[in-house]
Amino acid sequence: MRTPEEYIEDLKKMKPNVYMEGKRVSRDHHLLMYGIRVIAKTFELAMDPKYKDLLVTKSHITGQEINRFTHIAQSPEDLLKKQEMIRKLCHITGGCIQRCMGCDAINALSVVTYEVDKAYGTDYHKNFLKYLEYFQKNDLTAAAAQTDVKGDRSLRPHQQPDPDLYVRIVKKTDEGIIVRGAKNHITMAAYADEIIVLPTRAMTEKDKDYAVAFAIPADTEGVKLITRVAYPRPRKELHCPAEVYGVGDSFVVFDDVFVPWERVFLCGEWPYAGVLAHHFANFHRHSYTGCKPAVTDIILGASVLVSEYNGIRDKPHVRSRLVELVCVGELVYAAGIASAVTSTKHPSGTQIPNVIYTNVGRRHAGVHIYREYEILTELAGGLPATLPYEDEFINPETKPYLEKYIKRKEGIPAENIHRCFRFLSDTLCSALTGVSQVAGVHGGGSPIMEEIIIAASYNFGEKKKIAEYLAGIRSSLD
Amino acid sequence: MRTPEEYIEDLKKMKPNVYMEGKRVSRDHHLLMYGIRVIAKTFELAMDPKYKDLLVTKSHITGQEINRFTHIAQSPEDLLKKQEMIRKLCHITGGCIQRCMGCDAINALSVVTYEVDKAYGTDYHKNFLKYLEYFQKNDLTAAAAQTDVKGDRSLRPHQQPDPDLYVRIVKKTDEGIIVRGAKNHITMAAYADEIIVLPTRAMTEKDKDYAVAFAIPADTEGVKLITRVAYPRPRKELHCPAEVYGVGDSFVVFDDVFVPWERVFLCGEWPYAGVLAHHFANFHRHSYTGCKPAVTDIILGASVLVSEYNGIRDKPHVRSRLVELVCVGELVYAAGIASAVTSTKHPSGTQIPNVIYTNVGRRHAGVHIYREYEILTELAGGLPATLPYEDEFINPETKPYLEKYIKRKEGIPAENIHRCFRFLSDTLCSALTGVSQVAGVHGGGSPIMEEIIIAASYNFGEKKKIAEYLAGIRSSLD
Amino acid sequence: MRTPEEYIEDLKKMKPNVYMEGKRVSRDHHLLMYGIRVIAKTFELAMDPKYKDLLVTKSHITGQEINRFTHIAQSPEDLLKKQEMIRKLCHITGGCIQRCMGCDAINALSVVTYEVDKAYGTDYHKNFLKYLEYFQKNDLTAAAAQTDVKGDRSLRPHQQPDPDLYVRIVKKTDEGIIVRGAKNHITMAAYADEIIVLPTRAMTEKDKDYAVAFAIPADTEGVKLITRVAYPRPRKELHCPAEVYGVGDSFVVFDDVFVPWERVFLCGEWPYAGVLAHHFANFHRHSYTGCKPAVTDIILGASVLVSEYNGIRDKPHVRSRLVELVCVGELVYAAGIASAVTSTKHPSGTQIPNVIYTNVGRRHAGVHIYREYEILTELAGGLPATLPYEDEFINPETKPYLEKYIKRKEGIPAENIHRCFRFLSDTLCSALTGVSQVAGVHGGGSPIMEEIIIAASYNFGEKKKIAEYLAGIRSSLD
Amino acid sequence: MRTPEEYIEDLKKMKPNVYMEGKRVSRDHHLLMYGIRVIAKTFELAMDPKYKDLLVTKSHITGQEINRFTHIAQSPEDLLKKQEMIRKLCHITGGCIQRCMGCDAINALSVVTYEVDKAYGTDYHKNFLKYLEYFQKNDLTAAAAQTDVKGDRSLRPHQQPDPDLYVRIVKKTDEGIIVRGAKNHITMAAYADEIIVLPTRAMTEKDKDYAVAFAIPADTEGVKLITRVAYPRPRKELHCPAEVYGVGDSFVVFDDVFVPWERVFLCGEWPYAGVLAHHFANFHRHSYTGCKPAVTDIILGASVLVSEYNGIRDKPHVRSRLVELVCVGELVYAAGIASAVTSTKHPSGTQIPNVIYTNVGRRHAGVHIYREYEILTELAGGLPATLPYEDEFINPETKPYLEKYIKRKEGIPAENIHRCFRFLSDTLCSALTGVSQVAGVHGGGSPIMEEIIIAASYNFGEKKKIAEYLAGIRSSLD
Repeated sequence: MRTPEEYIEDLKKMKPNVYMEGKRVSRDHHLLMYGIRVIAKTFELAMDPKYKDLLVTKSHITGQEINRFTHIAQSPEDLLKKQEMIRKLCHITGGCIQRCMGCDAINALSVVTYEVDKAYGTDYHKNFLKYLEYFQKNDLTAAAAQTDVKGDRSLRPHQQPDPDLYVRIVKKTDEGIIVRGAKNHITMAAYADEIIVLPTRAMTEKDKDYAVAFAIPADTEGVKLITRVAYPRPRKELHCPAEVYGVGDSFVVFDDVFVPWERVFLCGEWPYAGVLAHHFANFHRHSYTGCKPAVTDIILGASVLVSEYNGIRDKPHVRSRLVELVCVGELVYAAGIASAVTSTKHPSGTQIPNVIYTNVGRRHAGVHIYREYEILTELAGGLPATLPYEDEFINPETKPYLEKYIKRKEGIPAENIHRCFRFLSDTLCSALTGVSQVAGVHGGGSPIMEEIIIAASYNFGEKKKIAEYLAGIRSSLD
Repeated sequence: MRTPEEYIEDLKKMKPNVYMEGKRVSRDHHLLMYGIRVIAKTFELAMDPKYKDLLVTKSHITGQEINRFTHIAQSPEDLLKKQEMIRKLCHITGGCIQRCMGCDAINALSVVTYEVDKAYGTDYHKNFLKYLEYFQKNDLTAAAAQTDVKGDRSLRPHQQPDPDLYVRIVKKTDEGIIVRGAKNHITMAAYADEIIVLPTRAMTEKDKDYAVAFAIPADTEGVKLITRVAYPRPRKELHCPAEVYGVGDSFVVFDDVFVPWERVFLCGEWPYAGVLAHHFANFHRHSYTGCKPAVTDIILGASVLVSEYNGIRDKPHVRSRLVELVCVGELVYAAGIASAVTSTKHPSGTQIPNVIYTNVGRRHAGVHIYREYEILTELAGGLPATLPYEDEFINPETKPYLEKYIKRKEGIPAENIHRCFRFLSDTLCSALTGVSQVAGVHGGGSPIMEEIIIAASYNFGEKKKIAEYLAGIRSSLD
Repeated sequence: MRTPEEYIEDLKKMKPNVYMEGKRVSRDHHLLMYGIRVIAKTFELAMDPKYKDLLVTKSHITGQEINRFTHIAQSPEDLLKKQEMIRKLCHITGGCIQRCMGCDAINALSVVTYEVDKAYGTDYHKNFLKYLEYFQKNDLTAAAAQTDVKGDRSLRPHQQPDPDLYVRIVKKTDEGIIVRGAKNHITMAAYADEIIVLPTRAMTEKDKDYAVAFAIPADTEGVKLITRVAYPRPRKELHCPAEVYGVGDSFVVFDDVFVPWERVFLCGEWPYAGVLAHHFANFHRHSYTGCKPAVTDIILGASVLVSEYNGIRDKPHVRSRLVELVCVGELVYAAGIASAVTSTKHPSGTQIPNVIYTNVGRRHAGVHIYREYEILTELAGGLPATLPYEDEFINPETKPYLEKYIKRKEGIPAENIHRCFRFLSDTLCSALTGVSQVAGVHGGGSPIMEEIIIAASYNFGEKKKIAEYLAGIRSSLD
Repeated sequence: MRTPEEYIEDLKKMKPNVYMEGKRVSRDHHLLMYGIRVIAKTFELAMDPKYKDLLVTKSHITGQEINRFTHIAQSPEDLLKKQEMIRKLCHITGGCIQRCMGCDAINALSVVTYEVDKAYGTDYHKNFLKYLEYFQKNDLTAAAAQTDVKGDRSLRPHQQPDPDLYVRIVKKTDEGIIVRGAKNHITMAAYADEIIVLPTRAMTEKDKDYAVAFAIPADTEGVKLITRVAYPRPRKELHCPAEVYGVGDSFVVFDDVFVPWERVFLCGEWPYAGVLAHHFANFHRHSYTGCKPAVTDIILGASVLVSEYNGIRDKPHVRSRLVELVCVGELVYAAGIASAVTSTKHPSGTQIPNVIYTNVGRRHAGVHIYREYEILTELAGGLPATLPYEDEFINPETKPYLEKYIKRKEGIPAENIHRCFRFLSDTLCSALTGVSQVAGVHGGGSPIMEEIIIAASYNFGEKKKIAEYLAGIRSSLD
């Protein structure tokens, strides 16, 4: 397993293909560090005895100790552990741990390469297992690039006026394939070792050139990572853990990129494009049942803190709001537990989370994220929006006024109150706020996507039978 | 194990102390049959090979086969099975299976009698185990009588102008105790073999005469069961399973009732009144994570059915509503699973559900029940409210008109449409409707009670630490 | 203007064409009296000096004093008065005043007959004015029969396998027309003097036989009123105003009914079918902005009362719920005021409420009705569902127990508490409950119908311009 | 009336007492311009014939033409016009027009100075009218400084350990008074001509030194304006109207500030502190019924626009969301109309909005603001959060990729799509976002403040009577 330093060193060695601030930049750009510090924690804590049980496991292919983020789930316990690990790590970085997406991608590939080989006699699964061994041994990180730019949303890939609006195979050679297109909203692509490309939707036969999956190093020739970073407002003197973590999302362009065959995992087998998209979403939404409760935990913790500072902790309406937050977080987590407990073993050996519970859980998180921010705002009052800049807390002409007048309950130092509201101001009123809200709705699939999956997967017929039986339209429940 | 017939025969043998329609009636009164048929199903299906695995288990004290409703949970699997059993049975009876309350009462007593004995050197647990053996061997049913009438809600028991507004010990003798008071909203008391009395709340030392728990036969001298039955509108010709099931709730008066010591399980040990109330609530709310999803299943099934008949099954807003119902039911069920999976083993051997998840689950059900009815109403249209009486479907002068004009989609017989809307009319617009709604909010503890328990049990401090750490107010997460 | 006695006498004189309990019954059937008493109040109070200003106005055609329920609105003030009158009257009858529907029908006809004459050179408006004079002079009541049975909801009228599933013209003669079909959910048809038939939807040219409107006496040959009455649980001794009011809805069959030309107001002019449906809905939804706040007032009043009796009136969560109810009622009422204030004068002289505000108001009521019941349930506790039958409060064997144990706050007599919970039990847990809930959603048009109207009527383009201007896509707001 | 240029020139002449970025700055600081441009529009448009009717009215004291923002409402029409003016102006500046607060402050003073004089024989009203004339003649703008910093929220002003945590009178002299303390969240204080100080709450006799109101020039000796500005992310090339407007809030310190008697409007008459706070809140919340619908209009317009660009404008779920937004905005506006129509004339001549409707309206806005953002996010998709920086759209190396891949529906130029999503990114994911959300909840009084006012003002007794009458507890409605 790598150290955080090794991970960062490896990033520096990569060819610069990240674009920010109008320039091509290398992977030690100060803005990228916000996300890099998040990923680095997943290496650092794997070496911390306190976290080892959560972060380290054994590879089912080599028997070696590996980082859990590179593991293929083999049992319900593996799924439960992953969920728990993600929740804990997100507490430490104050939000999305990011590295789960690569993990979810390899889990999905472990299932679907197996199925495609069964159906088509291909060798994807063998190649995948080789890639997996390399991935685990080198303790790699991967961005999962799924969402295509999609052009006109009412048209299928092959119907688009510009055929490149979904990533597609433009050529096949003996050595591999050439792909073109762009993927959007790709978290951590600018500081991942690898990019794993997956289809974004089900395909028809006419879309078969769009049924493609593969893995490549993130600095492969032709790949352009146009990147935007969301990060907390920088601090001058009032430093704190939250200030160092952020997230970078990339618009990933594939300008005729070559992928060797041993790294291709789907190539034209169009009926499996949707299957792969579905399995990735399922694994990823199970991961969300770990991270979203952590987001709630942070909002809840901040709500408790500011309620105490404001002297309203014991008011009944505060109790109601705090319990409402508990219920959001714990129902999502419960859905993840239920999904693991009722998961199924795939012939490939991979343990597949129960699709109803992963989707019910992810949807519940998605339809409550704005409500959670609303609660924190309600309890915090207006100060997060109007808190004077940190400079005024430093300027000796204004500092005494601010320290005098920010005081609340006796005994709580002005600095603590300042720290609390500075944190709330960043949480509720910085550029990062909206990004977290939008990610809370759309990241990993919007509530309407979960609605579609649930509608397609749920056994409505069984429920209808119950009503028919009770109404006397059918004679028994069976 | 008893047959349903034996259960009914045993009821008939009891002394008549049920009051209905201005009279004292025996336990074969036609209105009581609505509830009796529900309980009878729990005997009948225990003998059905298809349901045996769910309904029959082994006693941990005798090793004999027993009905699961008389079992003390010994493992997470026991809790999972109970949850599953309840969901399935509620499908069959179209709602609350009722017998769980006695089961939850004995589970709570198994824990608390053990603890009181440890603290006070009493013999309650030994007596309880003897009672349990009798209860299991005779395959008994019990109503759990917890909710006192409570008088002025802002006063404690001992502060009430009338000291009888909570059930209390009025005398102790060598043979036993004499109790007086009344318990309200006691489901199935009028057709249970036994009544198990539990405290309704935490008590102070001054309330110690109110810290009392015991079990008595439901026809014990001095017990008066003033009963109201909720049942579907009776049918004339259009019979169906749903029409035969209902529920009776009793206002249970204890007019100086004698209880022998071997059936007393708490008597003045006031610190344990709240503990017992809490454990019963916890087991009972775990049972709710089984029955409430069944209620949702029925509403969902009816929603699917009527949407099909109305020809709107494929409309997007219908999909949204159906999925919303799925999410309510499955999140509650997931909370029950999570509660079982994270349950703990008590020194008495009893497996205690995780209190956060049981309460989060029950609360979720409670805050959505009216919304669920709203959805069904929305999809059904106005006909459940205005459907002509069944007589008009029989009267040859009006029948042809109704059969002609009730037609909807081609191919669905008028009778089926009539059956569907008759069922919906009973579900949405009969006296039973409101009872189900009120029970959905308050039965087993209102959402505000769950809020109180969650607020008291949840580790808010741990969440506050996360915020303090991220804000730089505390240096680490621990 | 008629006295209530005259109204009732006139009903008795009508030919019996009401069907209930499997029989043809006359209009003094005891169940019909529930609705008749409601309508009778609108005659009684018109003679009460205290209500005269609200209930009596001057006819704009004859200058005579008339009941406001027979008036065509001529000004914003007329609309405001109608709204106020309805709210006040609904307080007295404990719910829907019913007579507004005939009023809304004549208002809609006053507009559309005018327009059709302009477009087609017909004489409908002249005939209508003659009918109006007769209607006002005789102080008549009318049921507006709009909703067809509709068969397969995905097919237009002319596409239905059975052409009678929408009311249609089967023949025209020199004297008039013959119509066939059925209208459903027709409130007060069984105790109205007249039935005014209106189209239920927009029609295409192929549906032109379905574009028909007319008025007939409710006992016209061929009309069959298959009726269902919703009413509170009958009382034995504990009488109260609420117990006498209810509502009858009829399934109205038109079995080749003859309508003379002077009472026909639309006959084949298909483009105006939708216009008429729309205007009736608009006037009727404006009436709802009067009655729905009254429903809220009653639920709110009951919530205040039971909170006081339960001793929780001063709890913060109670304040929140009461204010929530205030906001529902007053926002709906405010929408009605805004609709009146921004109403427009039609060339016919009729004042037309602003369609956006009537629909926004009605929708707000419709999406909150279940929530309002939920709040009352929450504050009332479980007793409305389990309150023993009135017989037990009469039976001397049980009465003392009930009177002792129902006591709550000192100083409130047991009878008052009993009255309060009896009323709540009827409000929350009788057959009337569900009918009120379903009516609250679907009566006068479901929320989804308001959504459709708002979506069709609102000036979205104007709002889009604002965004385009701010984003720099368009250069100015105009 | 002043020109915008005169307003800006006048600001420049003021003594620099604004603190930003660690320095004392003058009133032409580039960040202040964001708010100044908003206020300048209120001068500019008063001269635009198209807006004159809305923005210009006649002074009731001088008969001169004045800007409506300096007017004291004399009639319901004045209130309706103000509401309309605010909605229109907010469209132009993309949000809060800010100048209403000074207007609301003078309206409240016009009422309360009159009442205090009646009660105490003081001269405040005469002085106020003199001040008003000066205010109108010079076409001034004023920040209303109401919210004190408040220290420990569970203590009254005089109980605070530090007596300065509410603004107080520290000395009275023959010439005037000396005040000390700080007011927080004071919008536009840094670019207003005047600051009008009002009490933040009701006071007891012991708090009488805190019962103080006055007006001073914003650059008065001893006043310190510690300011934070919220503004959209700056643009480089893609300019648009939205980018130039923002808002500055100040932490206003009163370090022993002298106020001459003729500018003092309350000084120790403690029973009127709450009255004044209440009237200001009432006028200000009525203004909110104008601005909040405008905020909804912008969110709605953006929702329509992005739905069209995304090709989903005709989807049913989009229709539902758009109508939901319409309903939020129009119900708030309707509440403002109802408040104006049912307003009352105060003996001072001022027209006072109906307090129930202003508060019902403001609360409705406050409890939906996060939901409105949620809807826009839902319809926009994830791109607002991940849209690459503007630099990458300029950099010739990345520009062609972005322009190729951002394309959606045929026929919509890449630039328009870019403009749309850049605007959405600023609306949903910039520092301004959270500020708008927090202001939407807390600005002008949080929903819980409206709840308190409604609970205190609403006639619950009248509603209780209705329930008592219907239940038979009272014999009539009166």
